[in-house]
Amino acid sequence: MFDPIETLKQYIACRSVSADSAFAAGMADARDFVTGLLESVGMRVQIVDTPKHPIVVGTREGDPSWPHVVIYGHYDVQPPDPLDLWKSEPFVGEIRDGRLYGRGAADNKGPFLVHLTALGRLLEEQPDLPLRVTVVVEGEEEIGSPSFGAFLAANRERLRADLCLLSDTGIPSPEQIVITCGLRGIFTFDLEITGPQSDLHSGLHGGVLHNPIQALTEILASLHDTSGRVAIDGFYDAVQNVEDWERAELRKLGKSADEYQRFLGIRKFHTAPGFDPFEATRFQPTLEINGIGGGYQGEGSKTVIPARAFAKLSCRLVPDQEPEAIWALVSKAIEDRCPPGVRAKLTFGHKGRPYVVVPPGRPNTPADQSPGLAAAFAAADAGVSEVFGRPPLYLREGGSIPIIADLETIAGLDSLMLGLFLPEDNLHAPNESFHLGVMEKGIEVSRRILASVAGARR
Amino acid sequence: MFDPIETLKQYIACRSVSADSAFAAGMADARDFVTGLLESVGMRVQIVDTPKHPIVVGTREGDPSWPHVVIYGHYDVQPPDPLDLWKSEPFVGEIRDGRLYGRGAADNKGPFLVHLTALGRLLEEQPDLPLRVTVVVEGEEEIGSPSFGAFLAANRERLRADLCLLSDTGIPSPEQIVITCGLRGIFTFDLEITGPQSDLHSGLHGGVLHNPIQALTEILASLHDTSGRVAIDGFYDAVQNVEDWERAELRKLGKSADEYQRFLGIRKFHTAPGFDPFEATRFQPTLEINGIGGGYQGEGSKTVIPARAFAKLSCRLVPDQEPEAIWALVSKAIEDRCPPGVRAKLTFGHKGRPYVVVPPGRPNTPADQSPGLAAAFAAADAGVSEVFGRPPLYLREGGSIPIIADLETIAGLDSLMLGLFLPEDNLHAPNESFHLGVMEKGIEVSRRILASVAGARR
Repeated sequence: MFDPIETLKQYIACRSVSADSAFAAGMADARDFVTGLLESVGMRVQIVDTPKHPIVVGTREGDPSWPHVVIYGHYDVQPPDPLDLWKSEPFVGEIRDGRLYGRGAADNKGPFLVHLTALGRLLEEQPDLPLRVTVVVEGEEEIGSPSFGAFLAANRERLRADLCLLSDTGIPSPEQIVITCGLRGIFTFDLEITGPQSDLHSGLHGGVLHNPIQALTEILASLHDTSGRVAIDGFYDAVQNVEDWERAELRKLGKSADEYQRFLGIRKFHTAPGFDPFEATRFQPTLEINGIGGGYQGEGSKTVIPARAFAKLSCRLVPDQEPEAIWALVSKAIEDRCPPGVRAKLTFGHKGRPYVVVPPGRPNTPADQSPGLAAAFAAADAGVSEVFGRPPLYLREGGSIPIIADLETIAGLDSLMLGLFLPEDNLHAPNESFHLGVMEKGIEVSRRILASVAGARR
Repeated sequence: MFDPIETLKQYIACRSVSADSAFAAGMADARDFVTGLLESVGMRVQIVDTPKHPIVVGTREGDPSWPHVVIYGHYDVQPPDPLDLWKSEPFVGEIRDGRLYGRGAADNKGPFLVHLTALGRLLEEQPDLPLRVTVVVEGEEEIGSPSFGAFLAANRERLRADLCLLSDTGIPSPEQIVITCGLRGIFTFDLEITGPQSDLHSGLHGGVLHNPIQALTEILASLHDTSGRVAIDGFYDAVQNVEDWERAELRKLGKSADEYQRFLGIRKFHTAPGFDPFEATRFQPTLEINGIGGGYQGEGSKTVIPARAFAKLSCRLVPDQEPEAIWALVSKAIEDRCPPGVRAKLTFGHKGRPYVVVPPGRPNTPADQSPGLAAAFAAADAGVSEVFGRPPLYLREGGSIPIIADLETIAGLDSLMLGLFLPEDNLHAPNESFHLGVMEKGIEVSRRILASVAGARR
């Protein structure tokens, strides 16, 4: 059985940057490396082509009556820039103070190896374990998983399973594991307002036309009320009520609003009524202006009325808001509110559905939850409590991982997201690392989860 | 007596670009050339130093009881770029189809020579003409006349005169002279909104804070009502009522709103209630957003909540709006409307007062109008009617020439602005030219104006 720390070092040495074609060889190295690992635990490996970076799929077949778990990971990493801020080589794993440093250590090579090591150890102990396993390792996560939806659609049958097990979310401290139970959905779009056919002199023509920047600010300002809520009819209609247990769970996180405010460096929170800051990011949708531009932005002044102005926006969605439905509301509101003197052009960007999974035993747990998923949650709860010394928290997060919703929507798979990386792991930044204590404990928890799912025969 | 066309060719050959220090020699050439011209008509010349480009001042002394006229011009020109679009050399005057082409031909070398030629001819006819003349030719007009206010303040006594005569405004056709009777004032400012101490992930933190772009759009959108008027208490309080004769004069211009709308390429005019498009740009103040920026403006999307956003704004002012007073109202309104979660920082730019001069014989002509100014207007009216075959129009313009208000405010001088350049003269653009027919007729009108002022002894 491989040693997880040495293996992680070797895996980090594969320079698998998906965003940069100069790293094509490193991407191939990573696929070969993952292939070898999967084969070393007895799996059959298939490389599934995509338009960009192939997906590595490992399979442990078995009796169709056996439970089936899908393990998800990604072998691609963020670019290592800026290189001069790294204290050690980004593609050479180096251990310092109980952490293994290197690009991809925490995102996602280390956390993926947690589950693969757990599987290897379990199969070593119980070679006849009645569990079917499919390991899916994609190479396009850091560039938005553009091929993953098509892969899921084409492999729906072989992915029919009790759950997807993965670790690509965070924890607040090495002692406090979080099982992520929800993610916000997202869609992005651009709004362009055009007015006169060319930029105009504001002295000669100022006063006769609706300045496109002004029209843009009028439309954008109308999209929220003064309380901070989105001022579009129907926007909140599909938003699920938040269960008391979810609010209670969040309070256990023990975060201080004052500290959060200081961290953000803001004068005052601006949350929708009825939600504290920690709740607002998790349970409420948003309509956010991510960028705006138009006219003269240089030094000094240029007294111009510009021909156009634009904004880049996105919505974060919560269950049961469907991106298409909310986009229809938002785009119609913007079109309706466009003043008659200018033209509005809306361009849709990309989207991902919101996702929520309810642990067993909650008032809103679905009656038809699969025994495998329930067993996995139970094992995770007990395992985390024992191994980490503290029960996990079940929290939704404000970010979006569209593939998690895709796994459910396209392949019918709910996910158990075992958070393993820490804020100080520096994901996407120089000096990325993975906490080796969390890694070793995580392996044991994952082993118990997998064993428990194997025992959850229908 | 010099020939005005040959003289204009020589003057154009002085490469006097004030914005670019590479043209320092050309600036000196132009000063020498103007000095020689002024001396050729019998004036005493002084070069007045400024921090950048000296001012050339020519003086024709005389009995203190004689009327006194100030003639204004500027010897600096715009840069000639883009050079490849010129059909002839920018600094070599070339006559084609009754026009003299070259940088500065119309702005302002040709129109200035109109008045200097008129003065020369008049003094040739009447060497004992009882008229004191001060010619002021600055070299910083194209860079905003930064030294002109201080020059006026330091030379208040020697500039005490009946009027300032100049030509640095436009006409719609070679047959229709416009005497510009008003200019809008201006001030510019920047507004910066800051929120969190750094850019934030809109998934992790979206929903807890007032996005600085959103706050900016809310403030900006609040600055106008739906009718297009500025929604700030007191903004219009000092605005003079428009006289019927001014509206009637404007109608004589015979411009078509439909044509104007097609020229602008807009769907609909957006003028303050009670003003047609031609009136709105001349008689109404504005608050215009000239630029806006913040967050991500590149391709695709980046789901960020930016730490800051900014806008660049300007107000155009009409009599009797004082820049300082309106700035106080606008800045207070913006500060009052800044939401509590963000900070607003306002930075004042530059300013110029609005200006209006009323021709004699109008219901609102000041009772104390100087006889010299009244005589100049009367001579201009009769001269233009006879020489150009059509009476001049007396119009305000929407643009701003801060030095005209400075002449009044600092030196107590009203201006007779005899428009001489045409839209097709391509000011500030390649293939600038000056219409030689307008030039010759303009000289005759100017000669009559100067002769008339000389006869207006108190």
